[in-house]
Amino acid sequence: MAISLFPKVERGEMMEQKMIEEIVSQVLAAMSGTKQADAAIKGIPVGVSNRHIHLSDEHTETLFGSGYTLTREKELKQVGEFAAKETVTLVGPKGVIRGVRVLGPVRKFTQVEISRTDGFSLGVIPPLRDSGSIKGSPGIVVVGPCGAVTLSEGVICAARHIHMQEEDARQFNVTDGSRVTVTVDGPRGGTFANVLVRVNPSFRLEFHIDTDEANAAGLKNGDMVKLGQVREN
Amino acid sequence: MAISLFPKVERGEMMEQKMIEEIVSQVLAAMSGTKQADAAIKGIPVGVSNRHIHLSDEHTETLFGSGYTLTREKELKQVGEFAAKETVTLVGPKGVIRGVRVLGPVRKFTQVEISRTDGFSLGVIPPLRDSGSIKGSPGIVVVGPCGAVTLSEGVICAARHIHMQEEDARQFNVTDGSRVTVTVDGPRGGTFANVLVRVNPSFRLEFHIDTDEANAAGLKNGDMVKLGQVREN
Repeated sequence: MAISLFPKVERGEMMEQKMIEEIVSQVLAAMSGTKQADAAIKGIPVGVSNRHIHLSDEHTETLFGSGYTLTREKELKQVGEFAAKETVTLVGPKGVIRGVRVLGPVRKFTQVEISRTDGFSLGVIPPLRDSGSIKGSPGIVVVGPCGAVTLSEGVICAARHIHMQEEDARQFNVTDGSRVTVTVDGPRGGTFANVLVRVNPSFRLEFHIDTDEANAAGLKNGDMVKLGQVREN
Repeated sequence: MAISLFPKVERGEMMEQKMIEEIVSQVLAAMSGTKQADAAIKGIPVGVSNRHIHLSDEHTETLFGSGYTLTREKELKQVGEFAAKETVTLVGPKGVIRGVRVLGPVRKFTQVEISRTDGFSLGVIPPLRDSGSIKGSPGIVVVGPCGAVTLSEGVICAARHIHMQEEDARQFNVTDGSRVTVTVDGPRGGTFANVLVRVNPSFRLEFHIDTDEANAAGLKNGDMVKLGQVREN
């Protein structure tokens, strides 16, 4: 971005007044178009989502037994969400993944969130989607101790996003639906573009990525990243 | 980067001459330290490295039999390198990965290149290293049809890098050992920082990443990326 602001400037060339004026004008244009994050200094903790499944009530009963309710094992950072004691097996055309964690509470429909790497193992290509958007996504067979469910759709690769509350949003100068760039330090650092901001009073500040993104960027749970450029929705 | 150049400038504030001068001076400083890639428009094809192993002569014989030589199955883009017909099994403290491709020709020492994701499956944490730098890296058990080898070191996660020839290097305004930023388009786009440039007459232009990086950025073999900022070695 810093570079593309000055496409006509070449090293070693005399910096004349006209060119300086052009640079300043382009800098000002860029600054008005790209809001500077007022709280760019504030870090955002990383939450790495391993493969998991959200189950409907009906599917919970099919997989774990009639009248079954999920057992809370660990509270997640987002309020009300929890990792259940229960796990399932995913069976795809090319492979099987065991021990896939069920996240609670139950939802209106079942959704499987896997990484692209998992997709290659299973033989299913998960489309990149925001959570809840499963229309037209591939299905898979889910197996539990009491039965199996053949999903006709519901397997996605969750698009990275940042959860935050209104106060965070004000500090970062973003709104619900903003797309931002997230900057990562370290030897595998760089930037994630097109990161969706989700603002809700119940949310806790957290940058959600999947295991491919975490491993590619050298990130683990609790690592801190920075919000970079903001693009309005 | 665009942001950090102007730390004291706030939106809505009057741009006075002194401030403009400071901006220009910082822009010039940044431009002298960060060379613009003259051929930024030229794309670089992606080469995704799946997990693989380079074997020494001795280990080839232990795993596949006395006097055994590797069978060329597919030439790789880098001249002289090939995917062999042979595969091995990696056995780590927490898991097993079968069908790991042997790459030829044989090398002076055995080196296993896996992703961080593979590392979690195996129970081995591969350090991020340039190829050939295995000192102090963890070992693993490698199993072939005729025997097994217990490596005391050699398991790494290969650091991303770009292969190119002198002519490419001139166009990109880089030299062997330069560190550059690589820009990726698309919904999972962004930038990879700290990418090592390797220049050699035998090389073919290619951006080598592992499967975690490919999956995280939505890249596959042959996709094109752009070289961004250049930092000297």
